[in-house]
Amino acid sequence: MSSHHIIREKQEPALIIANGEACSEELLGQLLEWSPLVLVLDHAIYRVLELGIKVDVWLGDFDQNHDFDEIRSRQYPLKIVHTPDQEKTDLEKAIDYLVAEGFPAANIVWATGRRADHSITNITNLVRYKETIRLVLFDDYSKIFPLAGIFEKWYVAGTPISLIPIGVVEGIKTAGLKYNLNDETLTLGHRTGNSNEAETDGMVRISALKGDLLIMECWD
Amino acid sequence: MSSHHIIREKQEPALIIANGEACSEELLGQLLEWSPLVLVLDHAIYRVLELGIKVDVWLGDFDQNHDFDEIRSRQYPLKIVHTPDQEKTDLEKAIDYLVAEGFPAANIVWATGRRADHSITNITNLVRYKETIRLVLFDDYSKIFPLAGIFEKWYVAGTPISLIPIGVVEGIKTAGLKYNLNDETLTLGHRTGNSNEAETDGMVRISALKGDLLIMECWD
Repeated sequence: MSSHHIIREKQEPALIIANGEACSEELLGQLLEWSPLVLVLDHAIYRVLELGIKVDVWLGDFDQNHDFDEIRSRQYPLKIVHTPDQEKTDLEKAIDYLVAEGFPAANIVWATGRRADHSITNITNLVRYKETIRLVLFDDYSKIFPLAGIFEKWYVAGTPISLIPIGVVEGIKTAGLKYNLNDETLTLGHRTGNSNEAETDGMVRISALKGDLLIMECWD
Repeated sequence: MSSHHIIREKQEPALIIANGEACSEELLGQLLEWSPLVLVLDHAIYRVLELGIKVDVWLGDFDQNHDFDEIRSRQYPLKIVHTPDQEKTDLEKAIDYLVAEGFPAANIVWATGRRADHSITNITNLVRYKETIRLVLFDDYSKIFPLAGIFEKWYVAGTPISLIPIGVVEGIKTAGLKYNLNDETLTLGHRTGNSNEAETDGMVRISALKGDLLIMECWD
């Protein structure tokens, strides 16, 4: 086997393409490069097929008519997963599917933009999976992930980092930020850690005692 | 005085134009029509001036250089309000300004899209003003406002209505929705009332005992 042969293994994040606003093709290309599995939600399949992307799994409640044979013919092999449960969003079902298949991590795109109810639900629901699977949601202006345990990462000085509590988050401690928190509480809608940034080139450290915190790296 | 003379009084909502993604000109035109005061945030002034809109107040921390004389010359009279406080976002300062000026209501546009940290902060911060001023945030896909007291409104059957709890909201009761809640709790990130809808042509009624609930009318 050539040393250039690419083995796409499950330790790399799977990619979920949801049904919101499309991201740049550059971002999508970066996320596709190492992805061992591409999962597309329901109606997004038509937009994804137009981009010529190889899809592995197509998942949805399929509450509107599709020509399944036609789509299979354009995209073979394609696993089609029908998830009629109305209690969950298609994105939640996609994450559940990847967890059941044993994936330890997934990136998510096209999950923001357009309808605010869908955007805010997709973003805030990330926290419920924080102990189960490593999720990162990307769009053209944002990289969003839940705090799980202690977060440590090296950043360039001035990198914007926002701490968004999904509800109340207690005992937040940070190091390496311009405005550090020392055992403080943040409450969504009342006190958030919006528009903080890495103070110097170096490690940023974030932890919390209780609650669900989202970390957002955003740029204009 | 002609009966066609338009008196723009303070009981109509003021309009705040924030610094996110622009909305359609049609939506902006509708909101401008009756607005007694137009307030523009910081850098958005350049995009607003290009649209030929009459601005009454320009507010911001003005942390980057502006040619104030040049802008005054294009937009006279223009009240310039410098708000250097770094503890609040420009949108919060704009709302505080309108409250201090005695406005009972304001519409907000250009406050979503682009950076997710700014979007989610702008949307969720609406709840902190629910007892002070009636706020409605609009974009091309969404109309968002906090529940204050009991909400009652007539809707066409099938109108999408999402209930998004900002944290934990207890004792939620609804009538007229497809999936009604009866003294139930919603928790952001864990259980939300996304993608509900008016069941029939008729009144929808929403109330809650405790917590901050956002009501979102969204469309694709």
